[in-house]
Amino acid sequence: MVSWWNRKRAGQLAAAWLASRNPRATSPVERLKLDDVVPEPAVFLGQAAYLQLSLYETMGQAGAAAPTMAGRLVTGVLATTALDRHRAFVSEMERVGLDPAELMEPHRHAIDEFLERISGADWYESMLTGYVTGGILNDLFASLLRSLPGDVRSGLDDVFDRREEPAVVAELSRQLAAEPLVAARLAMWGRRLVGDTLLVARSALASHAREDGARLEPVFTELIAAHTRRMDALGLTA
Amino acid sequence: MVSWWNRKRAGQLAAAWLASRNPRATSPVERLKLDDVVPEPAVFLGQAAYLQLSLYETMGQAGAAAPTMAGRLVTGVLATTALDRHRAFVSEMERVGLDPAELMEPHRHAIDEFLERISGADWYESMLTGYVTGGILNDLFASLLRSLPGDVRSGLDDVFDRREEPAVVAELSRQLAAEPLVAARLAMWGRRLVGDTLLVARSALASHAREDGARLEPVFTELIAAHTRRMDALGLTA
Repeated sequence: MVSWWNRKRAGQLAAAWLASRNPRATSPVERLKLDDVVPEPAVFLGQAAYLQLSLYETMGQAGAAAPTMAGRLVTGVLATTALDRHRAFVSEMERVGLDPAELMEPHRHAIDEFLERISGADWYESMLTGYVTGGILNDLFASLLRSLPGDVRSGLDDVFDRREEPAVVAELSRQLAAEPLVAARLAMWGRRLVGDTLLVARSALASHAREDGARLEPVFTELIAAHTRRMDALGLTA
Repeated sequence: MVSWWNRKRAGQLAAAWLASRNPRATSPVERLKLDDVVPEPAVFLGQAAYLQLSLYETMGQAGAAAPTMAGRLVTGVLATTALDRHRAFVSEMERVGLDPAELMEPHRHAIDEFLERISGADWYESMLTGYVTGGILNDLFASLLRSLPGDVRSGLDDVFDRREEPAVVAELSRQLAAEPLVAARLAMWGRRLVGDTLLVARSALASHAREDGARLEPVFTELIAAHTRRMDALGLTA
């Protein structure tokens, strides 16, 4: 079973992440280089399908607490894209004769534990979780996808198209403009999310890598750059 | 605002429903006759969109408590179809320049109160709610849809295609076969659901009718017949 959570690495990762935000340490963003990564399709599909299923449930639980109906509609957008992605992975498993429930099961405990930690205390935090954690893990899985065999990849190419982001950004920005105290709290929450999520991303990536993860650093540079753009879009400091 | 819940009519409706299950009282199932019903498109779309949004949230809340991963996948199927339907109604509102949040808002309180009553105490009950209550209200809205102007109708024709039902029936039947005590409890729960849901259906239909609801009885005969078929498919007595 893949270990999604490794408490001992939290400090190291947080330090690396902070260093990456220091202008003097910034290197040009590189394209993801995943030559060393050979995902096992069955593991990839089970992980990805279960993660998306869990993300939609997190949104379903958060939706009713939205402060406005417009906010609730946007929670529905995040749930819809998560379920569409879940369904795409389930269809792919069924196409090749694999049992989706069986492939998802090994990832249940670790992903449940992770999402429980980061599901958020109110609607605002849950939305940021959907946007930030969903965004980082979608970017990661999109990169892994590119290293999968062509027959698995075809049909999944458009899965991680980020089509939910404009609606989330528009609605969350509007809410935050009216609630400066919430904005300050969410900037903090975003920092916790990125730390926890990158740790999980590292663990997932390492489990697919041929050798030690040292050569995978550019992947994290890219994930962090995309995260910073996402927070910028909300007017929040990453 | 449409009143979705009228406690005084519960007894009458329950009696009518019981009578309908008496073989001597059974009349041939008629095609829905909705000549007297002229739904206001804005009201129809707001009601339908909010109901589907709420149904997906109910499924999202129930999913994590599923006894098996296969059960959880099926909860995801119910959530997916609810969100697809929600999205179809939202798209239609946007197409004609109406504000989805504004049109959904008047129905919020009544639908919330209704779903809170019937969301179920565990995964099994919530699944039956999605299947039975979702099924009855989908049938009702499909009938109303046929009375809408053609330009609203087109594009929404396939919305209520019942495509989720085979997966729900297969999984729930498998679970119930292994849990006879749960099956007995669910048969009871189904009776409560149909009583409460038909009451809501009657209220919704009356709000769209030109005159007194007396001539709408065939609609309910049809809804009850479809409900009985749904319960039969699970091996449960309606």
